[in-house]
Amino acid sequence: MLQPLGDRVIVEPLEGQDKSPGGIILPDTAKERPQEGKVIAVGPGALNDKGERVPLPVKEGDIVIFTEFGGTEIKVDGKKYLIVDERSLLAVKEA
Amino acid sequence: MLQPLGDRVIVEPLEGQDKSPGGIILPDTAKERPQEGKVIAVGPGALNDKGERVPLPVKEGDIVIFTEFGGTEIKVDGKKYLIVDERSLLAVKEA
Amino acid sequence: MLQPLGDRVIVEPLEGQDKSPGGIILPDTAKERPQEGKVIAVGPGALNDKGERVPLPVKEGDIVIFTEFGGTEIKVDGKKYLIVDERSLLAVKEA
Amino acid sequence: MLQPLGDRVIVEPLEGQDKSPGGIILPDTAKERPQEGKVIAVGPGALNDKGERVPLPVKEGDIVIFTEFGGTEIKVDGKKYLIVDERSLLAVKEA
Amino acid sequence: MLQPLGDRVIVEPLEGQDKSPGGIILPDTAKERPQEGKVIAVGPGALNDKGERVPLPVKEGDIVIFTEFGGTEIKVDGKKYLIVDERSLLAVKEA
Amino acid sequence: MLQPLGDRVIVEPLEGQDKSPGGIILPDTAKERPQEGKVIAVGPGALNDKGERVPLPVKEGDIVIFTEFGGTEIKVDGKKYLIVDERSLLAVKEA
Amino acid sequence: MLQPLGDRVIVEPLEGQDKSPGGIILPDTAKERPQEGKVIAVGPGALNDKGERVPLPVKEGDIVIFTEFGGTEIKVDGKKYLIVDERSLLAVKEA
Repeated sequence: MLQPLGDRVIVEPLEGQDKSPGGIILPDTAKERPQEGKVIAVGPGALNDKGERVPLPVKEGDIVIFTEFGGTEIKVDGKKYLIVDERSLLAVKEA
Repeated sequence: MLQPLGDRVIVEPLEGQDKSPGGIILPDTAKERPQEGKVIAVGPGALNDKGERVPLPVKEGDIVIFTEFGGTEIKVDGKKYLIVDERSLLAVKEA
Repeated sequence: MLQPLGDRVIVEPLEGQDKSPGGIILPDTAKERPQEGKVIAVGPGALNDKGERVPLPVKEGDIVIFTEFGGTEIKVDGKKYLIVDERSLLAVKEA
Repeated sequence: MLQPLGDRVIVEPLEGQDKSPGGIILPDTAKERPQEGKVIAVGPGALNDKGERVPLPVKEGDIVIFTEFGGTEIKVDGKKYLIVDERSLLAVKEA
Repeated sequence: MLQPLGDRVIVEPLEGQDKSPGGIILPDTAKERPQEGKVIAVGPGALNDKGERVPLPVKEGDIVIFTEFGGTEIKVDGKKYLIVDERSLLAVKEA
Repeated sequence: MLQPLGDRVIVEPLEGQDKSPGGIILPDTAKERPQEGKVIAVGPGALNDKGERVPLPVKEGDIVIFTEFGGTEIKVDGKKYLIVDERSLLAVKEA
Repeated sequence: MLQPLGDRVIVEPLEGQDKSPGGIILPDTAKERPQEGKVIAVGPGALNDKGERVPLPVKEGDIVIFTEFGGTEIKVDGKKYLIVDERSLLAVKEA
């Protein structure tokens, strides 16, 4: 599998019946609208001024809302994923 | 419910009869005009240079004025909310 | 009343007979021209790198010259105010 | 009189016979060309990272060359002045 | 051979049958889409504020996903390579 | 004479027979092409983060190559000069 | 000869038969494509936050790949050179 670099995560976008029940509806009228997705892999975080990695605020399995802007689409074994940087992660769904 | 990430808050926009009485009128002639809203959830704040979170200056329940610019619209259980970053929060209504 | 956030102030714009006597005339030929106004409320100031608030250089009641650019117009109880950030404050009238 | 804020100065533009003798001719073919002016009031300077004011390199009475770009025109008691930030001050005339 | 400078790597792009098996499909509908490639040479890393080199998170032989944006195409002995900076490296394939 | 402020120098442009012999030819097909000039006056340098002036790497009398971009044209006693900031100084001619 | 200032180098572009044998072919279909060149003179490097010069990662005689973007063309004694800043140096050829 792919390991994201820096402050990036790999997200599996949730659409239609895969979406969280009771759930969140994200308007799809515009191009750079928010999306719902499941975090598949988490990068080590960006380096701060002291040379330390700043851990990302999400973990594998988290359901996140993110903006498509800044995300890069890839396909692994026929499945669509997005590589998204921290800045584009807006919120996380609490269990 | 959703937990905002970084320096973001989730705001429920107040419109029409929901608005604060005696209240604040925000011109709606332009696209990126200010809006009135109620803070529903507050992120941990952005990281400063020392790696500490800078707490946000608002709390749950606060009535805030914010610019729509930078806000991202979502719908949870049929209700409209906005994910807004700190920079877009202009003022808070004092009790 | 509203409490401005960060390095913002709330200013009541002065026009016509409300202007300071002897006073300052601001050209109105352009859109983002300076305005004269009275400071109504002052934010806590922006955070510096050490996590301290930098107090704003104006106080309630001060007459200021500011650029409309960056200002956000609101109406409270039928009166027009502007939320203006520190960068847009150009000068203060000395007593 | 007005007290400039931050790293701004108030400058009285010199034109025609008011200009320094022997003097400096500034081309006026373009909009944002340099101007000659007399410093009327000096702000406290911008704040540096340590929270200290950085004094401005000019004083009241100095004849300066500045770019009109970044300057804001005001009129006080019928006289035209410009509020100019430090970055726009190019040179000072030596006595 | 060429030694990349700063935070750059030299990447041999993988196309068609050279691609990793089972693998990653990158959409090619847009100009600045992600690409798969093999790292051929690694720069010393960018300098941080303390004057130290920040080592790059990839090594020779790694299979990486990168955005073509920021990459510069060169040809050495008839073979096409790309000089890519760290910011454009999105993910690395785990062995 | 004029004293440049900050990291600026005043340069007398060299043209035609005034140019350095054996010399440097600068293409004049484009607007923001390099120019050859003689340094007439040197500013104190920009302030660094510690509040100290960073001395400029040129001195009075130096022949420099600079880009016209960022330069501001003035005339003193009928002679044309340019106020140029450090960033626009490309090279200095060695004696 | 000319001494480059700051983090600039002077490069003699290599074209046609002057190019390194076996060598590197740089596509010339676009304007800001990479070029091959020989380093003729090296600046002292940019100043870091501590006021120290950061030495450039190349030396006189090095064969470098650089992007024309950011480079400034000059002619000395009829020969064409380019003044190039560090950011535009992509790779160095190893001996």
